[in-house]
Amino acid sequence: MSLVRVHNFSISLDGFGAGDGQALDAPFGHAGSRLMEWAFETSTFRAMGIHGESEGSRGVDEAFASAWGPGIGAEIMGRNKFGPQRGPWEDEAWRGWWGEDPVFHTPVVVLTHHPRPVLSMDGGTAFHFVDADPAAALEQARALAGDGDIRIGGGVATVRQFLEADLIDHLHIVLVPIVLGRGERLWDSLEGLEERFAIEATPSPSGVVHLVFTRRTPPSAGS
Amino acid sequence: MSLVRVHNFSISLDGFGAGDGQALDAPFGHAGSRLMEWAFETSTFRAMGIHGESEGSRGVDEAFASAWGPGIGAEIMGRNKFGPQRGPWEDEAWRGWWGEDPVFHTPVVVLTHHPRPVLSMDGGTAFHFVDADPAAALEQARALAGDGDIRIGGGVATVRQFLEADLIDHLHIVLVPIVLGRGERLWDSLEGLEERFAIEATPSPSGVVHLVFTRRTPPSAGS
Repeated sequence: MSLVRVHNFSISLDGFGAGDGQALDAPFGHAGSRLMEWAFETSTFRAMGIHGESEGSRGVDEAFASAWGPGIGAEIMGRNKFGPQRGPWEDEAWRGWWGEDPVFHTPVVVLTHHPRPVLSMDGGTAFHFVDADPAAALEQARALAGDGDIRIGGGVATVRQFLEADLIDHLHIVLVPIVLGRGERLWDSLEGLEERFAIEATPSPSGVVHLVFTRRTPPSAGS
Repeated sequence: MSLVRVHNFSISLDGFGAGDGQALDAPFGHAGSRLMEWAFETSTFRAMGIHGESEGSRGVDEAFASAWGPGIGAEIMGRNKFGPQRGPWEDEAWRGWWGEDPVFHTPVVVLTHHPRPVLSMDGGTAFHFVDADPAAALEQARALAGDGDIRIGGGVATVRQFLEADLIDHLHIVLVPIVLGRGERLWDSLEGLEERFAIEATPSPSGVVHLVFTRRTPPSAGS
């Protein structure tokens, strides 16, 4: 059975995965880029053309960041990660934040109450717009992923919903030592989560702490 | 100038320093002892007679736990740490949770709107009941402490109030990998706290992560 994985998901000390006031020009709200600055320095993110062309770091942050891609057959993301629009699509001109050759190179299931036709991009990325609960969305993603694992790409609400439904096997959280004060909390409604996971912490010289949650029991057969 | 220090202050992944439903028989509420279990294994806490007589660990948890005492001239604690009573004292029979020879061995300023006479215990501990804001309470504690540092002993609201007033120089937080879901949050109202501190993270084999916040600028003269 393929695994369901979360990678490089950054939160503040006070548990916010995004700041307050998210908008087209501020996808993380008042958090700005602070939650992701550790990643911008890594070779993996530099290779995506994010924040500069130089080669990037190869230390512990890169070791974690680079695990994002290998073995993944499809991603599931919330609509708010795909774009800033809300409600019915006014048109289909919006093709995501990532240009004509998005970084995913796999099918991507976009969770939305407003489906639209499959959007095929260069490089193997294809956005499938799906109105479904986490379990049904996962089933569709698995059908698209072949033997590959499924990455839950965010945002905060999407990760939380998959955790609530106990559908995540591997959860990589990056604790960034800032106090955001307001925004969207990851941990709400997840009391007792630690009972389902083994947790390992690894600090980085960059100042962040990588927390890896590994499911204690394998996913149940047929799930 | 003496320093103002916080030691061994445990919080959950979701930022709670105490659980919901605090009571006489449940000082941490529904969190039970889960926030402090890392400490119970250390030599420092064993030597206080807490949780068993065996010698206790001497690893990284002990290295942090043992910094609690040296150099301290007085503690400041909230009334809820001193005892479970609320409102005016019905009598003065309550002498704290710690027996006739409390672990502090210094003056202790207890913040309360209901002062009562100084309570002198064995071993050098004396509880001074003071109705004052953080800055005034700190001034009183310094007068009692000689050349020693001041420890802010908790609970959650007391630590938060001293952080809000920018009166803390050294803050040792222990991040315990549990999701409590409800209780008393440490970080609320402290947006941007990281700008005032250098922060270092150290994981322990016990599973907790020690976070040390060191004030970037020395306390202002005369503060």
